[in-house]
Amino acid sequence: MVDLGTAPDVARSREADEPRDSLVARFGHDRPLKLDAGVELSPFQIAYQTYGTLNAERSNAVLICHALTGDHHVANVHPVTGKSGWWETLIGPGKPIDTDRYFIICPNVIGACMGTTGPASTNPKTGKPWGLEFPVITIRDMVRAQAMLLDELKIDTLFAVAGGSMGGMQVLQWAASYPRRVFAALPIAASTRHSAQNIAFHEVGRQAVMADPEWRGGRYLVEGANPRRGLAVARMGAHITYLSDAALHRKFGRKYQDRSNPTFSFDADFEVESYLRHQGSSFVERFDANSYLYLTRAMDYFDIAADYDGSVANAFKGSETRFCVVSFTSDWLFPTSDSRAIVHALNAGGARVSFAEIVTDKGHDAFLLEEPELFAIVRGFLDGAARVRGLPIPKR
Amino acid sequence: MVDLGTAPDVARSREADEPRDSLVARFGHDRPLKLDAGVELSPFQIAYQTYGTLNAERSNAVLICHALTGDHHVANVHPVTGKSGWWETLIGPGKPIDTDRYFIICPNVIGACMGTTGPASTNPKTGKPWGLEFPVITIRDMVRAQAMLLDELKIDTLFAVAGGSMGGMQVLQWAASYPRRVFAALPIAASTRHSAQNIAFHEVGRQAVMADPEWRGGRYLVEGANPRRGLAVARMGAHITYLSDAALHRKFGRKYQDRSNPTFSFDADFEVESYLRHQGSSFVERFDANSYLYLTRAMDYFDIAADYDGSVANAFKGSETRFCVVSFTSDWLFPTSDSRAIVHALNAGGARVSFAEIVTDKGHDAFLLEEPELFAIVRGFLDGAARVRGLPIPKR
Repeated sequence: MVDLGTAPDVARSREADEPRDSLVARFGHDRPLKLDAGVELSPFQIAYQTYGTLNAERSNAVLICHALTGDHHVANVHPVTGKSGWWETLIGPGKPIDTDRYFIICPNVIGACMGTTGPASTNPKTGKPWGLEFPVITIRDMVRAQAMLLDELKIDTLFAVAGGSMGGMQVLQWAASYPRRVFAALPIAASTRHSAQNIAFHEVGRQAVMADPEWRGGRYLVEGANPRRGLAVARMGAHITYLSDAALHRKFGRKYQDRSNPTFSFDADFEVESYLRHQGSSFVERFDANSYLYLTRAMDYFDIAADYDGSVANAFKGSETRFCVVSFTSDWLFPTSDSRAIVHALNAGGARVSFAEIVTDKGHDAFLLEEPELFAIVRGFLDGAARVRGLPIPKR
Repeated sequence: MVDLGTAPDVARSREADEPRDSLVARFGHDRPLKLDAGVELSPFQIAYQTYGTLNAERSNAVLICHALTGDHHVANVHPVTGKSGWWETLIGPGKPIDTDRYFIICPNVIGACMGTTGPASTNPKTGKPWGLEFPVITIRDMVRAQAMLLDELKIDTLFAVAGGSMGGMQVLQWAASYPRRVFAALPIAASTRHSAQNIAFHEVGRQAVMADPEWRGGRYLVEGANPRRGLAVARMGAHITYLSDAALHRKFGRKYQDRSNPTFSFDADFEVESYLRHQGSSFVERFDANSYLYLTRAMDYFDIAADYDGSVANAFKGSETRFCVVSFTSDWLFPTSDSRAIVHALNAGGARVSFAEIVTDKGHDAFLLEEPELFAIVRGFLDGAARVRGLPIPKR
């Protein structure tokens, strides 16, 4: 069985309200967040990070949208795990998303658990964690909250919005909901709607969480419990979908763990088993189980065409935004065909779009990994857009 | 959450010892089953079905090997579910595996829960269900037990062995372990070894079972419990891998269940969700959780090359068996590349082999579904082999 230790659950619950090493924008009762579910969320807060300096024209802002299990600690040491930011490879001085040149903002999404209001946050009406009382949210809600953050920061137009996976969904939603506020958009390993297979995988993860008696109908934080086993199983299953058969074969094959023969037991005989168990157990140390339910649900509901008479092209009709769509050959969760569909819709809508399919065996997770071709594409696309935008080229 | 009702667990436990509507071969202490784990299993029993009539030369026997969650009720109504046999499309009078012509034997595998000895059976030493005291078994052990059943039935040589998925693994193992006892072999949607990705998916399923507190360290039958939620989650996850993205899209797409708008809740909003939940809840009515652990483990351990100096070709060197290897284009669990590897190894070993890749969007499960091309291939291959074998052609 997965060894899950004992939990710093109280600390995680505190992180949801008072995030360490984060900026926090607070929105009071006068500025509610209008949700697709038909209710208003107020008060609420957004935890975020910034890197670099906003120029006098306020024209060099780049918004980074994180994926399902990511957060706003994109280019700094993570306060909970102590690990590097999840896109430090891409973001920094002289890097493709250049902090010497751009003002980078990365907010934690609505529904998450690292400082932006979500199910682990305190419900002001009860003084206890929201749990399942938290309203179900959508990708559009996440983006609407981010637009309020930009208003707060007095940034009218983003130079660029970039993100992978669920982050890429937000990028597409930004371009659809606020076309005049987005100069350039970079959706990576994304889709305009979640497929039946992806919904199915998410549903298994949710059922794994909800099958854990420690989930307590979503009230585990109030009751001092934590569905660690269920969440670990959900993460293990999801993690397989982020990789590829080829990558798993290359990394692990059928290699035994610390031995040369099978044990004829249910121990983690194979390296791939102990790797997965580690993925499960480390995830529960940093993530809230209910947030996992809410964010997977938001991804499942995502379907841009549904909001535009069934046509993705309508969503981007007459858009002035320049797009760069990126996919990876071995990504079977958001396959290249999904990215091609985005490109076709953008073309049909008359938008400017370039497209790159990167050859790699790393699967969906390639957008988070050392992938030089991705870095070159992001750099090239932003450099070109910056020239058009008239942003100064930094001296080196 | 999945509605799992209450369980006829006692009935299922009884089925393991005294299977209804089944033949049972009992092997006493004088005939132990030698297991790869280095121990002997005795006494043990094999539940099986037969269809058709064994000819005087005892030369028309066809062995059918079932898959992970199948059993020996291959061409009769299932005593627990009341459903048709899992290969009734293929087996019957005038059908591709013709009961007017062949004597068909289908045994329940060692480690299963429908009457052949497995973890749900009574351990004669304790008078209680084996649970995790049952030794870990392999595909080779399953085949070794089947060979003992054939000895019991005084069948020296099988006219054919056929099976899909884990059944296909047994077919390959039969041809490797007992080449002179197999005239023709039909491995469908199979592989000579389980891939890292497949081991990973199995491990998630096992962890889902073991994460359920009702599993009770494997002692649930003794303690009157049943890890229904964990097993249902395992089944839901596995079921996705048996289908294909295209099939799920064709069957369900993003259709909502009984409504036209999302509920903004964690109910089964999408049809694919309620379909999966049904798969999970119906599975636990007929399957034993520990059997699921043992049989997935057996598949993970399967690696024919490992027993033959790392070479699959060595396993089949000089084989007189004629093979027909079948794969399906949309099967991503046992992809065509796995079947091609079988064919290459058979070619390298000098064996007779034909190969067919069937174009379908039905995924791995295609071997169990209405697939006319498969039916035609099975019929044609067996007809041809029967001519060589000198079996009479039935009058119609």
